[in-house]
Amino acid sequence: MKEVKIGIIGFGTVGSGVAACLLKNGDVIAKRSGIKLILAKIADLDIESDRGVDVPKEILTTDAHQLIKEVDVVVELIGGTTIAKDLILEALEQGKPVVTANKALLAEKGEELFAAAEKSKADIYYEASVAGGIPIIKALREGLVGNRINKIYGIMNGTCNYILTRMERENVDFEPVLDDAQKLGYAEAEPSLDIDGYDTAHKAAILASLAYGEWFGMEPVHVEGIRDISLDDLKYADELGYRIKLLAIIKQVEGDVQIRVHPTLVPKNTLLADISGVFNGIMVNGDTVGDSLFYGRGAGRDATASAVVADLVDVGLNLKFGSDRRVPAFRIGPQFKKLTPMESIESRYYLRFQVKDKSGVIAKVADILGKNQINISCFIQREGQSKENVSLLILTHNALESSVNMAVKKIEEMAEVRNKAKIFRIEDM
Amino acid sequence: MKEVKIGIIGFGTVGSGVAACLLKNGDVIAKRSGIKLILAKIADLDIESDRGVDVPKEILTTDAHQLIKEVDVVVELIGGTTIAKDLILEALEQGKPVVTANKALLAEKGEELFAAAEKSKADIYYEASVAGGIPIIKALREGLVGNRINKIYGIMNGTCNYILTRMERENVDFEPVLDDAQKLGYAEAEPSLDIDGYDTAHKAAILASLAYGEWFGMEPVHVEGIRDISLDDLKYADELGYRIKLLAIIKQVEGDVQIRVHPTLVPKNTLLADISGVFNGIMVNGDTVGDSLFYGRGAGRDATASAVVADLVDVGLNLKFGSDRRVPAFRIGPQFKKLTPMESIESRYYLRFQVKDKSGVIAKVADILGKNQINISCFIQREGQSKENVSLLILTHNALESSVNMAVKKIEEMAEVRNKAKIFRIEDM
Repeated sequence: MKEVKIGIIGFGTVGSGVAACLLKNGDVIAKRSGIKLILAKIADLDIESDRGVDVPKEILTTDAHQLIKEVDVVVELIGGTTIAKDLILEALEQGKPVVTANKALLAEKGEELFAAAEKSKADIYYEASVAGGIPIIKALREGLVGNRINKIYGIMNGTCNYILTRMERENVDFEPVLDDAQKLGYAEAEPSLDIDGYDTAHKAAILASLAYGEWFGMEPVHVEGIRDISLDDLKYADELGYRIKLLAIIKQVEGDVQIRVHPTLVPKNTLLADISGVFNGIMVNGDTVGDSLFYGRGAGRDATASAVVADLVDVGLNLKFGSDRRVPAFRIGPQFKKLTPMESIESRYYLRFQVKDKSGVIAKVADILGKNQINISCFIQREGQSKENVSLLILTHNALESSVNMAVKKIEEMAEVRNKAKIFRIEDM
Repeated sequence: MKEVKIGIIGFGTVGSGVAACLLKNGDVIAKRSGIKLILAKIADLDIESDRGVDVPKEILTTDAHQLIKEVDVVVELIGGTTIAKDLILEALEQGKPVVTANKALLAEKGEELFAAAEKSKADIYYEASVAGGIPIIKALREGLVGNRINKIYGIMNGTCNYILTRMERENVDFEPVLDDAQKLGYAEAEPSLDIDGYDTAHKAAILASLAYGEWFGMEPVHVEGIRDISLDDLKYADELGYRIKLLAIIKQVEGDVQIRVHPTLVPKNTLLADISGVFNGIMVNGDTVGDSLFYGRGAGRDATASAVVADLVDVGLNLKFGSDRRVPAFRIGPQFKKLTPMESIESRYYLRFQVKDKSGVIAKVADILGKNQINISCFIQREGQSKENVSLLILTHNALESSVNMAVKKIEEMAEVRNKAKIFRIEDM
């Protein structure tokens, strides 16, 4: 049986998960795939601490460069965009295929990495970089290869989804839930990468590149996070038949592609609305297959390890059969016309203004919207606790982002309007 | 670019879908995969009727044997278990890989087919045989290769799910919905294959074989259909927090495997309960990845074509790289101890008896259940329209199937009990 020597760089949470999986399930993996994955080396600066995995001491090393020389496949699990990149390039230069879970690195430096892979004819596999245990990269690259992709909707950040789910279910506002999530380890001490949407945006950039054949990087991705979602917004949305999710939206409209990450009102009667807690869900609409949805754990030691191991088998089979670069790492040449800048997208909108309850306010607001070609589908003014501060809630029909921004700016300038408006987009699916 | 000559046998619904997909998306498929799939021949007894696909007349033939000789890959889409089997064996004998959507043939004759494939070193790919557009075979075989499979739950028959969804939503009983489904083309004139559970059972046999490494065939699969589900049952289940679905359950308990298809009460707060209409959903629990769920169209021209085309790309890449049998068609050697016979499974149960409302009936029923080691979790007697016929509704804790059957038989023998009992199993997930 073909033996494949695996070297893991980074013996943290995921690294120990991969080691544990190979030790526990190596026998069944070999029977299923016809190759034997051998855990040959693990490199980390710390090779003393106990990771709860029983690996032989002699395979531990602090020398990642030596590891790269000795193994057949390099698994990069140290994260970050500097040393990780150098080590991946070093492996590729030696013709060693690389498996990585590093979404930030791929999203930001994918172009450079894939150029190096192309040059060396070695593969980069990255199933674990998007939505952990969900085999979405393989599904997009292979399972749905016969489809032109119309849309991808992704709930891809467990921290955000956990926070929104708890706010909704426990009737608590954002800040206290974030505090508690940090105490429980569901959110980082520095939570910005997650809650400001960048982590989701990294994943969106990767999926968009795979779907539309060009490595986009982060530049064209519009990113908003969940800090502005208040409990009131969740309640209003609920009453109107929606849940608010941090959604990645990748879609082509008449051949043009848009990539954006922002809080989105999703109809409650859809499966995406039911994806709760730390789980991830990705809906793909292909021109042949129609709607399909993939659901599972998006992060965590074992779910991510499951994805890394699947990649290791693919890479190992490529080595066995000499079929390196069997499936191009990403698709060759753009499968779209142009990128749609954010101000040119069309969407439905949820707008909430806090206003003084004076006669004429509603007429003025409606007038400004109308003058900007924004049609209203729902308009609610609620009786407030005081006449000085009532909520004006507006759902629109499809409207142009730039028109909405202009109208909102005008409305915010009105003397009767307090604070900044809340603007969320609605996706009816 | 490597060219792969495709021959389709069976120019029906799916055959024309595959042809349409190759014609429409051949360019993007080639860019993504690095191979060119060429629609070389289509064989059918009828080569005159218009299928709404613009294929060149000269590729149509009535001679399937000649087609097999001329092409690189044979797509079997005629269905049935006789001629289809002969043609597949003929292709394999000539070393031609085969792509098929024929679940009945695989489930019933898989052993013979895979032995022939083994002998000839040609591949059989069968993504389209289970759950149409959902790439579940690839997910189980490759994406989750690092997992021992604990459980698979599948809603895999669109006709049944459509009927149950309409009964529930429109408050109508089984027969009129079936009648209407037949008129609308959602159910066959002879609906038994679907509504009596056999179609789901075929798919369950295939998934179980893939998960546990032995081609099981149909013999060990326990099958019940949906004819016995009445509107009353759906309503009672709903009140108790459940929906009733025709569920395939494949699971290993302490190393022993059970494969069964029957109406099942599924908690309403699970994603599986929300899979409605003609859609399919498959939940897989792996020891590494945890729960994951795959959702999409389970049937229909284009969804099935999407799966066939994905297989064609895999087979084509195998031909390009000489990596035939890259991933073993099914897993080598059993990954389980033994099969659990149906009478030995443990489950929770929903039992409904129609009884005369006389004193002592409840005590007698409870006594019989207790004597058979069946613990009750919920017991409801409703006031009926008449004292002669009231519903006695019982949910049990985990109990042994044989004990439940014995107890039910005893209860049915009571003078106060009318008709046969309704027995459905509950899966809490």
